[in-house]
Amino acid sequence: MSRSFKLTIAYDGTGFAGWQVQPGKATIQGALQDAFLKLTGNRVQVIGSGRTDAGVHAIAQVASCRLSWRDPAERLVRALNSQLPDTIAVTDACDAVADFHAIRDATGKRYRYQLQVGGVRDPFQYSFRWHLHGTIDRNAIRAAAQRIVGRHDFQSFQASGSDRKTTVRNVVACDLIEQSTGVGEASHLAIEVEADGFLYNMVRNIVGTLIEVGRGKQTPNWIDDVLAACNRDVAGPTAPAHGLFLTRVDYPDACTADGETVV
Amino acid sequence: MSRSFKLTIAYDGTGFAGWQVQPGKATIQGALQDAFLKLTGNRVQVIGSGRTDAGVHAIAQVASCRLSWRDPAERLVRALNSQLPDTIAVTDACDAVADFHAIRDATGKRYRYQLQVGGVRDPFQYSFRWHLHGTIDRNAIRAAAQRIVGRHDFQSFQASGSDRKTTVRNVVACDLIEQSTGVGEASHLAIEVEADGFLYNMVRNIVGTLIEVGRGKQTPNWIDDVLAACNRDVAGPTAPAHGLFLTRVDYPDACTADGETVV
Repeated sequence: MSRSFKLTIAYDGTGFAGWQVQPGKATIQGALQDAFLKLTGNRVQVIGSGRTDAGVHAIAQVASCRLSWRDPAERLVRALNSQLPDTIAVTDACDAVADFHAIRDATGKRYRYQLQVGGVRDPFQYSFRWHLHGTIDRNAIRAAAQRIVGRHDFQSFQASGSDRKTTVRNVVACDLIEQSTGVGEASHLAIEVEADGFLYNMVRNIVGTLIEVGRGKQTPNWIDDVLAACNRDVAGPTAPAHGLFLTRVDYPDACTADGETVV
Repeated sequence: MSRSFKLTIAYDGTGFAGWQVQPGKATIQGALQDAFLKLTGNRVQVIGSGRTDAGVHAIAQVASCRLSWRDPAERLVRALNSQLPDTIAVTDACDAVADFHAIRDATGKRYRYQLQVGGVRDPFQYSFRWHLHGTIDRNAIRAAAQRIVGRHDFQSFQASGSDRKTTVRNVVACDLIEQSTGVGEASHLAIEVEADGFLYNMVRNIVGTLIEVGRGKQTPNWIDDVLAACNRDVAGPTAPAHGLFLTRVDYPDACTADGETVV
């Protein structure tokens, strides 16, 4: 008799080779599956809402899994955390509808890409922000970001070699946020992007492209040309992995009010 | 011909055996002196405003040193950072008055002690906050903290076995700050303490004592009894090192307007 669960997971991706299990490498999925094996004695497949790359972090990654568990779902949180490395934490667990699937059922996602502009290397942030020396034009980035918002073909922002059926996505938000001041007169900024789905490397390619505008190498209108080209070579460079955080994954009604058990 | 410098340094103390050089161990002072040796070919003694223990962090530790250097003081920042590990950064360097001494000349210091109350383990904060499960009474902590403020004999808050000439210090601020919400419904709080000087372990002992009040084990008035006792055994436990940050060291007029060179 197995139950279906929805897990919410936070992790510092610095020391991991990404989400997906890879032989001989430390991965988030691997650490979770190892924790389940220690707790239950059984292999449990943990399906994440999407793979995050090496160095990418999550505030609220979501995963689905099925296992035998007699206690309330909340007990899974402490039980899993007792078996996980310090840099991974399960922050929530709830009983999910019987066929809940973290990839298939996701209706939207939000990412945050963190930047440090100016200042010196920050000992507390160097794994969590892309450090840009000099200055950037915030208004130009904001104007460019507004051209990203909407239903577009994002093929130009997809890593070369991907083969998704459709490269059309609906970006509902793309905002430059002022977060705080950092060590040594640095500014901490973030670019937050929300969409119904993302192509491979899409956020990092959007950020790298917006920074070209912020550096004055391109004007905000250039974004329209990049979108129209449907060609990865036209967009800006890929921003480094370590600034990226998966901050939210949306599901309509994934959690059940009571534990639903299925034979 | 050597010049006197004032350096400001930020560090993540997690991987270090504290400030002070110890044979065979990674220390902040050791890393700075190694960086000077690589840059200049000479041994340079770096004197910190005070020793921080293993695991203790700094936003703005201050150090004094003397060396031959022909460029503007600001150039030292980039030069040192190019030789330092990622978890240590020099954030400022200025020419100091000829006899500037980071310990002797300090007139005040400020520390921040970071707490996480409730929630689950946070992958991004576990090296930077003392995690308290359950709840604390913020008003009781604030009332107790106000009894710490003032000129008192802080012998009860000094690590056993210390032998300072006087244990009287003037605490000018002791405040509980709400910082933000963390992962999984946690609260991020900080206790900030500022004084003309600190005894060994004084901030960690004040924090451990205030948390006894926050937990309801003692009333705020108990602080008066602890101060009056002049006995370490009467105060609360020592809070763990990893929540502590040195955030400011005050010097009247340490930096000169122009570089002052002394034979």
